[in-house]
Amino acid sequence: MMADESSEEKMNLVANKQVILHGYVKGFPKETDFGLKSSAISFSIPNGAVLLKNLYLSCDPYMRHRMSDHISHTGTIIHSFTPGSVLVGYGIGKVLKSANPEFEEGEFVWGLTGWEEYTVIHNPEIFRKIKYTDVPLSYYMGVLGIPGLTAHVGLFNLCSPKKGETVYVSTATGGVGQLVGQFAKMAGCYVVGSASTQEKVNLAKQKFGYDDAFNYKEEHDLRATLGRYFPEGIDIYFDNVGGEMLNEVLLHMKPHGRIAACGMISQYNLDEQEGIRNMFNVVIKRLEIKGYVETDYKHVYPEYLEFAIKNLEEKKLVYVEDIAEGLENGASALVGIFYGKNVGKQLVRVAAE
Amino acid sequence: MMADESSEEKMNLVANKQVILHGYVKGFPKETDFGLKSSAISFSIPNGAVLLKNLYLSCDPYMRHRMSDHISHTGTIIHSFTPGSVLVGYGIGKVLKSANPEFEEGEFVWGLTGWEEYTVIHNPEIFRKIKYTDVPLSYYMGVLGIPGLTAHVGLFNLCSPKKGETVYVSTATGGVGQLVGQFAKMAGCYVVGSASTQEKVNLAKQKFGYDDAFNYKEEHDLRATLGRYFPEGIDIYFDNVGGEMLNEVLLHMKPHGRIAACGMISQYNLDEQEGIRNMFNVVIKRLEIKGYVETDYKHVYPEYLEFAIKNLEEKKLVYVEDIAEGLENGASALVGIFYGKNVGKQLVRVAAE
Repeated sequence: MMADESSEEKMNLVANKQVILHGYVKGFPKETDFGLKSSAISFSIPNGAVLLKNLYLSCDPYMRHRMSDHISHTGTIIHSFTPGSVLVGYGIGKVLKSANPEFEEGEFVWGLTGWEEYTVIHNPEIFRKIKYTDVPLSYYMGVLGIPGLTAHVGLFNLCSPKKGETVYVSTATGGVGQLVGQFAKMAGCYVVGSASTQEKVNLAKQKFGYDDAFNYKEEHDLRATLGRYFPEGIDIYFDNVGGEMLNEVLLHMKPHGRIAACGMISQYNLDEQEGIRNMFNVVIKRLEIKGYVETDYKHVYPEYLEFAIKNLEEKKLVYVEDIAEGLENGASALVGIFYGKNVGKQLVRVAAE
Repeated sequence: MMADESSEEKMNLVANKQVILHGYVKGFPKETDFGLKSSAISFSIPNGAVLLKNLYLSCDPYMRHRMSDHISHTGTIIHSFTPGSVLVGYGIGKVLKSANPEFEEGEFVWGLTGWEEYTVIHNPEIFRKIKYTDVPLSYYMGVLGIPGLTAHVGLFNLCSPKKGETVYVSTATGGVGQLVGQFAKMAGCYVVGSASTQEKVNLAKQKFGYDDAFNYKEEHDLRATLGRYFPEGIDIYFDNVGGEMLNEVLLHMKPHGRIAACGMISQYNLDEQEGIRNMFNVVIKRLEIKGYVETDYKHVYPEYLEFAIKNLEEKKLVYVEDIAEGLENGASALVGIFYGKNVGKQLVRVAAE
């Protein structure tokens, strides 16, 4: 029996290319912090599991935290990657083999998977099945997935935009930011975005409908710049940046302004976090700063999905992606987002559908 | 006619002792930043006005901002005092003379008045009449006034305390803090306070019912201290302190924790504000930081007043005041609150009732 099982397993071993983290990262991540490893995977899967062929992987800023060897603080939801092991992140896959009655071979799903060609998913129940396939499959890592829900919840649930209010999005063309900008326009707001290149500034204005946009790298007096774009102040700030940008924005917030604290990418590669010195504005202007993570809003995803699909079909919503080809280019794509190299949502295509 | 009016006015001139600001303050205020001036006031008042005999004046942290020569940021509600002129602040007075049909001589009122013996109030409509007089009149500068409403709104309206939650009050025995502590106990919370002396720590535990309290001046590792008092973390932080305390508290907040940003007294005398470096905790723990000022909640004051009166009568609520006698001691009392010299709510008694 033992010998048989073992030989059967051997027969099922398949080569599996993986992106691994060599060791914990300090400062900005580099391509050399990661490696490609040719591993082997058994296609024999235990009861309840499915074997996934990974198609798309999402490059997300929060992954930077998983590259650090950090001690968890009370209540943190972020755990470190294991050096030498395959990266884990959100991805889209096709069910190659199913030992779970809920999943059929050939189905498309998305959820947390490995940065590799094939992954055995032991708890596929937490994956979402892909419902609409007449849109690019990759959209489930963007406008139809977590970035979309994140943008929608952050703007509407947390900041309750009202017609005529002013909205500032500091990552104007990012996977989340490009949607916040479009949603804020739908809400009748005056929307200004900032980005790191002139190309992105143009994209923001021409493609996403921002009323105005600027290249923050060319602005040397952020306070004056924000004053110029928001002479009457900011009602809503969608923050994916944190640090000095947040500090300066606080000075420009209007009374009763709202800040969705979605992420703080400017701080993720710093050993010492920048201090926010303008916090007293929170008191005198009665501001609200609300942190959130989309996992708390899973229950509104189905409703959001219908909203997004409808608006995509009616061409009222667009989505721009930046897709790197192949696991070979995965590390470079992932590292690139911390240098602002991506134009739109950064993905890695592992294999053709 | 002209001569008659003028001589009538002269006959009505009365000596009026005043506390004045000599010049704008830098750093911590000192008694010598203020002076006593003997002025004269005409008891002839225009139609619509009332003449107030000031009885109690409130010493409030926000008054520090009015001592600075600052440029208003968008939406700030704080304006500078005028050097050489009388201070303005909340006070309780008796209507000595009324040229307003809504006010009768002998009535007690509270509102923004001068730091002087007598003040002509041109818009008495914005004053509140004192309804209950079987409690100390001075309570209308504390538990029955703005500090009371501030504590109640900050805790209940902004932080929605639930039974069993942990609450931290960093100004445990202050004019507002002593009430937050008592209200949080009423809500069934576990409440810890901090203060600047052992006397106040004892007061917090013995008089206000805090479950525990500590002297932050004797704690040299605030992070460890907070970890000791809140091993499972903090659900609600009532912040009147800001700065490094807020920075450390962020590390100890539980997921979905709430922070009422009421004031930041630790920062008011600093040229450069301390930076809050732990803001990323707001994102990963989904925290809410809510700034507020009680003036936005005037409409709930009548209801709060009934609640407070009832609880005072039933001895379920206590209030500790620190009353300085006479305008001569006004500057010293006001300056003292920035050094933590007051034990309980700091007031100045200008005259006997």
